[in-house]
Amino acid sequence: MLEENIRKVTPYVPGEQPQCKVIKLNTNENPYPPAPGVKEALRNLDTDRLRLYPDPEMKTLISALAEFYGVKKEQVFAGVGSDDVLSMCFLTFFNSGKPILFPDITYSFYKVWADLYRIPYECQPLDENLRIRKEDYEKENGGIIFPNPNAPTSIYEDLSFVEDILKKNRDVIVIVDEAYIDFAGPSAVRLIDTYDNLIVTQTFSKSRSMAGMRIGFAIGNERLIRWLNDVKYSFNSYTLSYPSIVCGTGAVKDRAYFEETTERIIRTRTWVQKELKELGFIFPESSTNFIFAKHPDYSGTDLFEALRNENIYVRHWNDPAIKEYLRISVGTDEEMETFLNVLRAVMKKR
Amino acid sequence: MLEENIRKVTPYVPGEQPQCKVIKLNTNENPYPPAPGVKEALRNLDTDRLRLYPDPEMKTLISALAEFYGVKKEQVFAGVGSDDVLSMCFLTFFNSGKPILFPDITYSFYKVWADLYRIPYECQPLDENLRIRKEDYEKENGGIIFPNPNAPTSIYEDLSFVEDILKKNRDVIVIVDEAYIDFAGPSAVRLIDTYDNLIVTQTFSKSRSMAGMRIGFAIGNERLIRWLNDVKYSFNSYTLSYPSIVCGTGAVKDRAYFEETTERIIRTRTWVQKELKELGFIFPESSTNFIFAKHPDYSGTDLFEALRNENIYVRHWNDPAIKEYLRISVGTDEEMETFLNVLRAVMKKR
Repeated sequence: MLEENIRKVTPYVPGEQPQCKVIKLNTNENPYPPAPGVKEALRNLDTDRLRLYPDPEMKTLISALAEFYGVKKEQVFAGVGSDDVLSMCFLTFFNSGKPILFPDITYSFYKVWADLYRIPYECQPLDENLRIRKEDYEKENGGIIFPNPNAPTSIYEDLSFVEDILKKNRDVIVIVDEAYIDFAGPSAVRLIDTYDNLIVTQTFSKSRSMAGMRIGFAIGNERLIRWLNDVKYSFNSYTLSYPSIVCGTGAVKDRAYFEETTERIIRTRTWVQKELKELGFIFPESSTNFIFAKHPDYSGTDLFEALRNENIYVRHWNDPAIKEYLRISVGTDEEMETFLNVLRAVMKKR
Repeated sequence: MLEENIRKVTPYVPGEQPQCKVIKLNTNENPYPPAPGVKEALRNLDTDRLRLYPDPEMKTLISALAEFYGVKKEQVFAGVGSDDVLSMCFLTFFNSGKPILFPDITYSFYKVWADLYRIPYECQPLDENLRIRKEDYEKENGGIIFPNPNAPTSIYEDLSFVEDILKKNRDVIVIVDEAYIDFAGPSAVRLIDTYDNLIVTQTFSKSRSMAGMRIGFAIGNERLIRWLNDVKYSFNSYTLSYPSIVCGTGAVKDRAYFEETTERIIRTRTWVQKELKELGFIFPESSTNFIFAKHPDYSGTDLFEALRNENIYVRHWNDPAIKEYLRISVGTDEEMETFLNVLRAVMKKR
């Protein structure tokens, strides 16, 4: 009887927790530690202050982000990872009753939040090169969301592409999910004063090496950010912990470290792509900290399992559309050297 | 046009942020710092580990809680403050379409989550002594939630009262929100093996002095906790940050400090209640870290404002049912001494 009223979901199987030493290239984490300012912020943190609720306005973090991105404080919103920020955006902006649009191959949580908040949606197919077709986003809709670069395809579309979608959709909110933008090209943040229907979201989990801290943020014009805050405060006043606010602030203030580690990952990516190409892999040019690659002569499942047997973890999906692909996070040069050596050995064996 | 599809909420006005030194007795924070183990955990925290996602299963924290409460690990669920835990419980357990029941004077977020997830609800009035009437919870319903002790009334009902409600509602989930239980009597946690429809929630924000860390948890039988985890994982795999998991674990392991500070607050409460009674205040015997008091000769609004003018912040609502009451958090002896002196002076003036 009790069972009848329980929300039905597909039970999650927690990711494998390998007991031995592995090379972990399966969740797009940054191989470099957070900025030195984060360690300092944590060491200096006033533990006694933890007895108090955190600042619900997260003023130090919001100010640091506003300064970093050259926008106003009133144009920045923050949450517990970009998952929390995106979920709050769905709740705030997608209430028309018309279907929202997003790509069919994309971040898997868009469907989950749409279902959760009972927002109708229509998935738009990628083209034969795994690219988003902007014409698909010209039909009537209740809002649009797409990642740029898209995941797991790793493909970045330039700002004129983003602007075309924004221009055709002035009456609905367009969310550009820029989780991987720092490994790509210019951010749509520069368009927020031109398009009052644009929300850009980003995360501290990738380029800022702070997946463990759970910080994400959104930038948009003041009116959109105010609406987002109104909804957030009405449901949950205190989201980010005091240490997250303090350490997030410390991370943003260190621009040089951020730029240096990002550059390093891009250099490693260039080299790994060259090596993979020589091995016969096919992949879109990556604009992210991962490479989305398949091989004409090897099955994705086989390669995934063979690598795992050698303690190298990459990501693989059973979805028929992408089951031949591996998503390989870009680690350090040493990690990628090992990865490539093992990959070569594995390929020789089959 | 854009405005049409935005979720309509009552905009929140952030709490006053006084610039000068004040005595803050308005949010039921603990006046004592977190356990020494928290400081140690934070000092020893491996900052480099922040680059990785936190353990989605929060194993160290869950194990520490299970040990502390003498339950199995599979009977414990954790989230970002009890707000996150309660919201997840609403989503998981209240899906029958029938109205859920909760008191009319209680934690204000129950209505908010019910509205958010479109769960019908019926508020049940308190009796003339501000107590929950258990007969009101015998009608057909889709689930029940009440705080014990209730807030802001501060009244604790004993476990036979809780059991009576559980027995009459074997086919729906009953959530007992024990945010303040450590300042009261026995917890309903001891009933989870007897009643498979019981979920007990608690928080680190009050008795554990960690409001700034955002940790809450639920305890119930294994099947309920599994359902809760299934829903949580389907929406958001990573909720608690790495520092929250580490520091939460450090806090739970120090039972002596927890018991000592809780005892100290209870002693201060006893003394303050005696003083307030001598001043003519009327209040239910408090089982929490706050006192919910009114005075027959002074208006709640007047007292609230007079105290604020003297830099003493207590909580006051404009709800007609409770507008004569002040909710006064129990601070240190020194803070309460000052509070009482100012209160006496304010009362003389009128």
